[in-house]
Order: sequence, then structure tokens, then C-alpha cells
Amino acid sequence: MDHMPAQFDPPSGTRDFLAAEFDDRERAFATIRTVLSRYGFEPLQTPAFERLDVLLGKYGDEGDKLIFKILRRGEHEASGEADLALRYDMTVPLARVAAAYGSQLPTPYKRHTIGPVWRADRPGKGRYREFTQCDLDTLGSASPLADAEIICAVHEVLSELGVGGFGVQLNSRRVLAGLLEAFGVPADLGPRVLITLDKLDKLAAAEVIAELAGRGLTESAAAELVEVVAAPDAAGRIRDVLKRTEQGMAGLDEVNGILDLAGPLLPPERVGFSPRLVRGLSYYTGPIWEVTAEGMPGSLAGGGRYDHLIEQLGGPDVPATGGSLGIERILLILPGSAAARRGRLDVAVTVIAEDLAPRSFGLAAAARSAGLRASVYLGSSGKLGRQLKWASDQGASWALICGPAEAQAGTVTVRDMVSGQQTAVPANELGSYLARAAAAEGA
Amino acid sequence: MDHMPAQFDPPSGTRDFLAAEFDDRERAFATIRTVLSRYGFEPLQTPAFERLDVLLGKYGDEGDKLIFKILRRGEHEASGEADLALRYDMTVPLARVAAAYGSQLPTPYKRHTIGPVWRADRPGKGRYREFTQCDLDTLGSASPLADAEIICAVHEVLSELGVGGFGVQLNSRRVLAGLLEAFGVPADLGPRVLITLDKLDKLAAAEVIAELAGRGLTESAAAELVEVVAAPDAAGRIRDVLKRTEQGMAGLDEVNGILDLAGPLLPPERVGFSPRLVRGLSYYTGPIWEVTAEGMPGSLAGGGRYDHLIEQLGGPDVPATGGSLGIERILLILPGSAAARRGRLDVAVTVIAEDLAPRSFGLAAAARSAGLRASVYLGSSGKLGRQLKWASDQGASWALICGPAEAQAGTVTVRDMVSGQQTAVPANELGSYLARAAAAEGA
Repeated sequence: MDHMPAQFDPPSGTRDFLAAEFDDRERAFATIRTVLSRYGFEPLQTPAFERLDVLLGKYGDEGDKLIFKILRRGEHEASGEADLALRYDMTVPLARVAAAYGSQLPTPYKRHTIGPVWRADRPGKGRYREFTQCDLDTLGSASPLADAEIICAVHEVLSELGVGGFGVQLNSRRVLAGLLEAFGVPADLGPRVLITLDKLDKLAAAEVIAELAGRGLTESAAAELVEVVAAPDAAGRIRDVLKRTEQGMAGLDEVNGILDLAGPLLPPERVGFSPRLVRGLSYYTGPIWEVTAEGMPGSLAGGGRYDHLIEQLGGPDVPATGGSLGIERILLILPGSAAARRGRLDVAVTVIAEDLAPRSFGLAAAARSAGLRASVYLGSSGKLGRQLKWASDQGASWALICGPAEAQAGTVTVRDMVSGQQTAVPANELGSYLARAAAAEGA
Repeated sequence: MDHMPAQFDPPSGTRDFLAAEFDDRERAFATIRTVLSRYGFEPLQTPAFERLDVLLGKYGDEGDKLIFKILRRGEHEASGEADLALRYDMTVPLARVAAAYGSQLPTPYKRHTIGPVWRADRPGKGRYREFTQCDLDTLGSASPLADAEIICAVHEVLSELGVGGFGVQLNSRRVLAGLLEAFGVPADLGPRVLITLDKLDKLAAAEVIAELAGRGLTESAAAELVEVVAAPDAAGRIRDVLKRTEQGMAGLDEVNGILDLAGPLLPPERVGFSPRLVRGLSYYTGPIWEVTAEGMPGSLAGGGRYDHLIEQLGGPDVPATGGSLGIERILLILPGSAAARRGRLDVAVTVIAEDLAPRSFGLAAAARSAGLRASVYLGSSGKLGRQLKWASDQGASWALICGPAEAQAGTVTVRDMVSGQQTAVPANELGSYLARAAAAEGA
């Protein structure tokens, strides 16, 4: 890549997408839309900005600081106040839409959305201030079928995108609540205890026990909790423990129900009970899940049930469940596309003389009618060599040459840009000739 | 439409796009992308916002006032200052990209872009603060072939979108300059004289002559100018006048060249010389054109050559020509889509009992494998009647019923939602059965 003077860079944390990258991204988005629409998730697109009061106070103090605010305009600009703000996520706009269009929306309302969101985070490797968010959500269904459907849809999206070696970890907030209750952890300590337990991958058991004790658990409860959770057969041990409490039983029922629904439709071992899965966000109320892939830190997708959030965000009081695809991360691991390796043009049409330009124009039109990408030479050189160099730079498969001799004979010279072989083709057969040649090349 | 409380409306001048409208828009955008990529225009996507200094001063004082500015963040927020601003058009970002990626871009650089721009205009009927801009431009070619190519591409886009009864008006800034020169109009009076001449559609000839005289023309020059321009055979009369000046000859050559190139490829009479076409923007330097349709006020598309603008906007010094499709206006006149009349789902799967839910899940998956849109019932009613009401509300063509009897027999009852006819289908043949039924329905 050339040196790029900073003054022409896009703003910090944002990106320009030139042709190859744009095409790769659009192809992935089209796949996602196709799969999700087969599941009955319909598209929704909301404005880039919302009224500031719709967004403020919905993401916590830290979130509020990361909102891009838009200055008032006209005589109010000097006030330095903001009245609008760029979309920070897709859930607050969904709550507003659910409130605005109520009975016009189907019940349940299953929607997906793909679009940019903006967060004034410190930019870093793979962390952007403008990035694409891809969400699917079902509002208005309390059924575990809705949760299972979202997991199946996300699985199918990832499969069709060509992501390999991934798995779905499933848990429920009720499982976590039942676990804490079974070990006598006071409710107010719950969230911190779960965060500490989640460190068992990185810390020694003794360290985790000490941290739990520091958080207010008795030494013995902490030791017993860690013993169960870190056991080699933890899932089985935890299942037994959960049967001791009503919350735990309910959570286990949720997990088992979803495994019964989704399990048979997915490849074996693709989805499993992960009793230690917590997920950071506090608003989840039921099943939670995450998708991880071998060798990838973090998750490719995640979600869960959030039955009260839509109301808290200003929407109607409806049960809700949903998920988010980490599409920026997923795009990084997808194999390079065929389009990037294809040239910019299929057919490059030379212009040998000004008075023959209309003929070249017609040849390009014939190539396009055959479904190929074609352009005439728009430069100022009359030299064939220079024009063929342009054809080669465009990655064209064929160059068309129509000089006075060809014009006289009613033909066009089709040059195969790989072999250099030239064929005289009657001008009125050019479209079908190129269509056949393209089909042969594609085969 | 239900009454919509203002508090849940999208911000003034913006819109929410629900499924049917979103699908119509995306389909149009996909058509545009397909046609333009056949012409070798590659896609470009730039960030929603640019640094404020990149935008300020590029659109005149009036334009500057319409820019949405983004407040600085963190400790700088209290300053009330802005450092970023929402994209106001697609041309300034193009100039920045041309400067940033220079030699990485092909020569000429032919790009198209479709995306939102934001202007703090007073919202009104058909006038939005967030609206989609669709541009195509060729940087780096001074050839009239580049102008003609853009006109052909725009024509093909409109045709493939299904727009009818439109025509392309072609002129050149040099024609206008030559015309003024031939009538001895001083250069500094030129722009205002052209604006006045453009009123000949609405005002009587005498009124226009008076206004021209008021602008500083002699009474006789004004009368002669109007006599030529308003004549029934104005195009021919003006052609004769233009031959008197060098500018006029050059302009006529441009127009004739483009008519020679594009004319044969378009339907007869589709493009013509419109010597009175001015187009408001001052930066055009050569050919200019507009597309209008019968019965539509204003234009559907327009553009022209602007050889110095990219440099003025901070980009490299390259010749350039381009056009803009009035896509929001075009979308208004396109016929209602088939998708809007289609239901939300093709196949609605009932859930007769909780223990049969995994079976219903599998049936939905089979329908999706056949390429159909399918969902299981996610509500809480166990009554078949309620579930069939839901299937009907979704506009499903088929409902699938799998109760204990069907489960026992290994079948599924397929209910045709139009005729009410029910057919027992072996569960393992459901996919192919539905695929055949869908093909028959489509035929």
C-alpha cells in the first residue's frame, strides 16, 4: 500500500471501502439477509441518528460518554448543545420502532437489521468507531422455541458464510441464579461471584477461592462452589446441584428444551450446555448463548433472552430474545473472495480512431447485453499498445479491437488477454460469442 | 396507518423503513449496482462522517449551514465545538478518496456509490434530512466518451428499474458560453442572463426581454436573443448562431459527439440537444444533461463534466464527469413491488403439543431447505384455530400440522391456506413436496 498522508485518511476509527472489500462485505450481508428471511426475520432500517433523549441514559454512564452527539443548528448552534445523536446500537431503535408501529407489526415481530453504529471508543486493532452491527430479535414471544429458532438461524448464517470449526455454548441466567442459590450466595453478591468464577480458565482454583472469599462468601462455600464448577464432569455435577432449587430446575428445563429443539437440526456436538457461560450484560433474563470458533479469541456471535429490556428502553412491555453477529470479526476470518481475484472488467474495448468510437461504444453495449462487465478506453492515447496495457491493468479477459479493416469487414477482433490469441468475429455475433467464451472460462 | 405518538417518531426529516419498503429500496439499489458494474463502475463506500474541515467551505455559505456537525467528546464536549460532520454529498468524499489512494485506484477511476447523506434542510413533502444519494463518476478522462458512457449507463439503470416515458436533455456549458458571446453578453452577466432565459417556459417573451434588459443587456440584443432561443426551431437556429464563435463550435462538437455515441444505443428520440438547459451548479465545465419524465416536475437524474472541481475540493487535479440519480424521487414513481403483496412467510408451522415441538422445528427446517420462508408458531396458544389465524395473518401459502396422529404415521398435514385443502405428506418428502407446490404456485 502506498504511503497515505494523514490529511486524506478517513476520520480516526472509520474506513473507506474500495471495490474488492465492499464486494466481500456486501456478499456476506446478502447471505445473511437471505438466510434470515428464510427464517421469517424481516428487515428493518432506522435512521443513522435518533433524538438525543432517546439514547441518553440507556447504555450506562460509560456508554453515554461514547455517544456521538450532533450539535443543534442555525441560531442554536452557538449554544454548544446537542439535540440528536448517532445510533449506538440497534436495540434502542428497535424499542422505539416497537412503540411507534405497535399493531402494524406482526406478532411476534421477528426482525433483522444490518447497518453501521457509531461509538466514540478509542480506535485500535479491529476496533472501529463506525462498524457494522448485525442483529436478529424476536419481540412478543416467551417461548423457548423463539430462543432455539434464533440459535438455529445464527448457526445457518455462519455455515452459509463458510465459517468453520465453530460451536454454540448454551446456558441460562436461571441456571446461574439456581447455582448461586444452591450454594447460599446472597443475591447482591451474585454478579461479582459469577465474574470471579468466569476466571477459572485463567487462574488457579485456589486463587479463585480466595477471590470469592474476598467478595464475602464463606471459605467453605467458595471451595465447594469451585470444586463443582471446575470439576472435569462439571456439567453433570452442576445438573445435580441445580435440581436442589426451583430456579435451577427452571433454568435446566430451558437449556434442555433448547437442546431438544436445536440439537437434532445441527451437526453432532455443535451445541452444548456451558454452565459457566455468563455474558457480561446484566439485562438477560433467561437462555444465553455464545458462538466461539477454534483458535479465535472472543465470540463470533452471542445473545439471549431479555424480557424486560424493551420496556426499559422506552418500548412496550414484551418478552424478547435475540442475538448479534460479530460481523466485523467474522469478515476477518472469511476466505478471500473470488471477486477480489477477478479483474475490474471482463471486456475492454479499444478505440482505434475517433470516427470509429461509436462502433466501439456499440461493441461494449453488446458485451454488456451478454451480462459481461465492459468499458471502452477513455484515455487519450491512440496507440493500440497503450490501450492493451490498460485492458491488462483492468484484468480484462478479452480486449476488442475494431480498426478500419474490421469496420469495413463488419467484424471485430477479439483478443484473449491470457493467450494473446486473436479471433475475427462478425460484429453481430459478438454477444453470443462472448457469452459462450465466458461460460467456457467459468467452467 | 395507526396514530403514531410523536415521541416515538424517528427524528424530523428521517424515516424508518419496515420490511416492504426496505425490500423495494434494496431491490432498486441492487439493480443499480448490477447495471453500473456491467459498465465498469466499481463501488465505493466512505464513512458517514468526515472531519469538519474536509466539509466546511465546500458547499457555499448556505450549504455550510445545512451540515450536521458532531460535538467533540470527553473533556472537549463542554467546549461546544464540533470536529466531525455528517456527509453532505458524495463528491467531497470522492475527492478525498482520490487524494488518499491515488495510484491504488485504476485510471480512469470509475466509481458508483449509493448511500445516505444528511442535510439540515427544512423537512417537507418528499424532502428529507436523511436521504439516499446515488452517484456515478469518472475521474481522469477528458474524453467525451466518458460523458456518453455515463449517459448510457444512467439510461440503462432507469430502463431496468422500470421507469417509463423519460428522455435525456443534453447541452454543454460551452454552448451556453458561445451563445452569450455571439450576442455580445459580457461574461460577468452570463450566469444571470442564463437564469432569466430559463424562465421562457413560464414567462411571456416580452417579460423575459424586459428582465434581460434590466440585467444590463441592450434592448435589441435581448430581443434578438429571445427571438432565437424561443423560436419553434430553436435548436436549429442556435446551431447556426453557435458557428459564429469558437466556444460555440467547441460546445456543438461536444454535443454532436455525444449524440453520435449514445444516440444509436438508445431508443429513437430518447436523447436530444436542449440548448436552453442550464443546470444550476456553477462548477460544470463541459457537457451537461438532465433526465426528465412525462408528468414529473423536476428531473430524475442529472450531471455533467466538472473538470476542476475535484482539485477545488481538495483532491488531485483530474478531469471528471459524473451524474446523480434522484433515487428517492425515482422510488416514488416505481410500480408497487411484488414483494409487498407477498406474505411474510411461505410456510407457517403449527405446534400442537410441547413434546411435538422438535418435530415442528424439523418441518420448518425442511421447508427452508426447499428455499421457502418458514417459521414455527411462537405464541402461547395450544389451539389449532388460533395458530391457523396466525398462519393466515402472516400471508403463508401453506400451514403444516403435525399432531400425535401424524407423528405416529410419520406424515405431516399440509394445508393450502387459500383453498383450505389438506394433504397428508410423508414427513421425509415434505421438502420436495413444498418445492413442487411453490414452483406450481409461481407458474
